Amino acid sequence: MTRFFDLVAFDGDDTLWHNERSYRTGRDRFHRLLASAGVAMTEDEIEQRVNRTELRNLDYYGYGVSSFVLSLIETAIEITDGRIASGDLRELIDLAKQMLTEEVELFDGAREAVCALAGAYPLMLITKGDLLHQTSKVERSGLKADFRSVEVVAAKNARIYADILARYDVAPERFLMVGNSVRSDVLPVLELGGWAVHVPAALSWAHEHADVPDAARGRYFEIESLRQLARLVESLNGRSR
Amino acid sequence: MTRFFDLVAFDGDDTLWHNERSYRTGRDRFHRLLASAGVAMTEDEIEQRVNRTELRNLDYYGYGVSSFVLSLIETAIEITDGRIASGDLRELIDLAKQMLTEEVELFDGAREAVCALAGAYPLMLITKGDLLHQTSKVERSGLKADFRSVEVVAAKNARIYADILARYDVAPERFLMVGNSVRSDVLPVLELGGWAVHVPAALSWAHEHADVPDAARGRYFEIESLRQLARLVESLNGRSR
Repeated sequence: MTRFFDLVAFDGDDTLWHNERSYRTGRDRFHRLLASAGVAMTEDEIEQRVNRTELRNLDYYGYGVSSFVLSLIETAIEITDGRIASGDLRELIDLAKQMLTEEVELFDGAREAVCALAGAYPLMLITKGDLLHQTSKVERSGLKADFRSVEVVAAKNARIYADILARYDVAPERFLMVGNSVRSDVLPVLELGGWAVHVPAALSWAHEHADVPDAARGRYFEIESLRQLARLVESLNGRSR
Repeated sequence: MTRFFDLVAFDGDDTLWHNERSYRTGRDRFHRLLASAGVAMTEDEIEQRVNRTELRNLDYYGYGVSSFVLSLIETAIEITDGRIASGDLRELIDLAKQMLTEEVELFDGAREAVCALAGAYPLMLITKGDLLHQTSKVERSGLKADFRSVEVVAAKNARIYADILARYDVAPERFLMVGNSVRSDVLPVLELGGWAVHVPAALSWAHEHADVPDAARGRYFEIESLRQLARLVESLNGRSR
């Protein structure tokens, strides 16, 4: 059988397993912590401060739980002008450890999609964030054996995808990326001449709509659930027969 | 000319550039912070508490500046039983940002050693720690163009080296690793059948002595300075002529 792709890659966080949900729970705990410390701000105001701190710190810490919690600690100190008790901040350290070790919960259809494709294609996981945490999540996901390789990257842009494809000696037009983020998983891959499947995450803050260039439309697909992935890839294989 | 190796790899921190020095300065700032917060412990006692917290947190956070600073914050709260002012902890956040952006200072002879070998061998940097920070340090080192590839890993053990060599299709007996750590840069590589050069760092807490198995002695070298590396590799090339 002719195969349409030489490499199929998946994003991890919020594509194969829940992630954003855990950050939301963390933010909820942060709101309760500040409220019990007597901070009289609305949740929206606090969210804005957290977002601003996170954005400002991205170049220092990158993505991940440690970065998130360092930003929460900084925001709490800032908002209270140093009046929050350091014992209260201890709760944020506990939050970090809890987030880093909590169960990895797969999305509906994730295991089936990965297993179905692993039989026919070399699979790769391309994920952004903290190296140790991402590696540990792949291991705890139960899917590790299905992936030929795991690439943890500091950012997902065309240059980084191109670098991975070059290292694995894969032509972009023989590469398919599956992920929940238009900006990270879809556009840079299309830009290189590759193929992309967008699986919007249930918990996206604002549902991202892909502004896909016309020239790349034929290499772009959106599916509602990973349950539809195997059939989509099969239909592409049909084209190449 | 016959080349003795197909791949030569360097460790970064405390092999090519200063690193431990920065953590020492951070610990000094931590001691001063606790002293000015009225903590009446000796520096040794504080060091022991910090080391214990770091070790306990290694499985959560891994290696790197964020991990270090999260451990300092936790230790400060623990030691003072939550009495340290959160405004004082702000200084530790500043410390993290300062450490993450400070100048990368190469060791004497590092640039020359890398340049001399880059002409004859594909060079790789294999470094442990935080992905974003390590990537940024390579870029700021001015040596990035000399490295064919950069591998940031969560740990340095035989399995991880074997995985890298397999991905780059290099036989262990054609691989040379250069680094300051016996445990991370030397022993796992020798175990695989590779070659290793140990360059002890000036600032090692205790000078590590390599307990190299007899069978691997012929593939192990110790040099005092990176200035001696090019000649050593050249002498090995001489053997293969």
